[in-house]
Amino acid sequence: MTPTITAFASSPDRGAGLSRDMRVRWAFEEVGQSYNVRLVTFQQMKEPAHLALQPFGQIPTYEDGDLALFETGSILLHIAETHPGLLPDDADARARAITWMFAAVGTVEPPILELQTAKFAEGQESWREQRMPLVLDRIRVRLAELARRLGESEWLDGAFSAADIMMVHVLLRVKPSGLLDEFANLAAYCARAQARPAYQRAFAAQLAVATGG
Amino acid sequence: MTPTITAFASSPDRGAGLSRDMRVRWAFEEVGQSYNVRLVTFQQMKEPAHLALQPFGQIPTYEDGDLALFETGSILLHIAETHPGLLPDDADARARAITWMFAAVGTVEPPILELQTAKFAEGQESWREQRMPLVLDRIRVRLAELARRLGESEWLDGAFSAADIMMVHVLLRVKPSGLLDEFANLAAYCARAQARPAYQRAFAAQLAVATGG
Repeated sequence: MTPTITAFASSPDRGAGLSRDMRVRWAFEEVGQSYNVRLVTFQQMKEPAHLALQPFGQIPTYEDGDLALFETGSILLHIAETHPGLLPDDADARARAITWMFAAVGTVEPPILELQTAKFAEGQESWREQRMPLVLDRIRVRLAELARRLGESEWLDGAFSAADIMMVHVLLRVKPSGLLDEFANLAAYCARAQARPAYQRAFAAQLAVATGG
Repeated sequence: MTPTITAFASSPDRGAGLSRDMRVRWAFEEVGQSYNVRLVTFQQMKEPAHLALQPFGQIPTYEDGDLALFETGSILLHIAETHPGLLPDDADARARAITWMFAAVGTVEPPILELQTAKFAEGQESWREQRMPLVLDRIRVRLAELARRLGESEWLDGAFSAADIMMVHVLLRVKPSGLLDEFANLAAYCARAQARPAYQRAFAAQLAVATGG
């Protein structure tokens, strides 16, 4: 059966590829799995039908027959477990890749989410200007730690995996701030990932939604 | 082989059970796996030997023979895959439990981490008082969504699983603020989990470190 995911009917980034459905589209493209996309409005995301799939009212969701999932890390892990090519066969290498999938959303992304909150939810507050350098510095700490570990490696741990999809997409969300370019090896890591044909097909697909193509 | 984890030599919460090693201790106790603990100081956490295990300089880590992991979600998933009792056997139910493991650290915990930042890293800043209600309200939004989904269920999705360990421990981190008690079903959910003998053994073990027992 062809799985169905949800994505923004009207993406806040207008097709820049920063919405989280991009991670799932990219994974599908890497393994050659076709998929359907159901677009949801912001209003629909808060209605019971969507909340039954995604209790926090977000996108993307994943449906395949009777199985419904949310959380990009979980969806990518499920795709990796049902298709070859996204996780190593070796059990130890696989466990290490899953560690990086959790690190992407549990350790690297939280300070980046704080930046989005600082810019948008608190963008009109009196403390915005004074507080912003603290927010940016917390992101720099994480990026420096990641950059030190990555070094000159091509991918996070051996061959390209679902962990790189998760981490690269988290890092791309901080690119508009300019912070990513302070770490040359992280910027190059993202550029390597973005050069992959699967990334480019996924990017084009989400851009087509934004431009009505 | 007996796995080894790391924990704070001097826990910031003085044994209140809020450090992340608690999640791993609890999982080990649920499956009856003995484990070793290597205590690390804050200085050691930033030194090369620890950074080789945990690139972000945090605890806990997991070592078993040649395999080294970090991120509690990943460690619990590994324990669940190598021991019965922490994840359902049914493939769909297992995938849903993993969704909740990612939701705990990727969706519910980030606003709770913001509260810690607001209280400690920004505790002396001029905006602390005025900003705090916004931080608390963002946590309330997540807790309300989670409470609505949990309803009167005993656990997140069917039987107790590693997902409940992750989610309960994330929720317990917000308990000192009083926010958890605004949601009676979430408070009861945590209390049910804390009544488990495995939780109590894990709690006693980490408390013994803090009290020098």
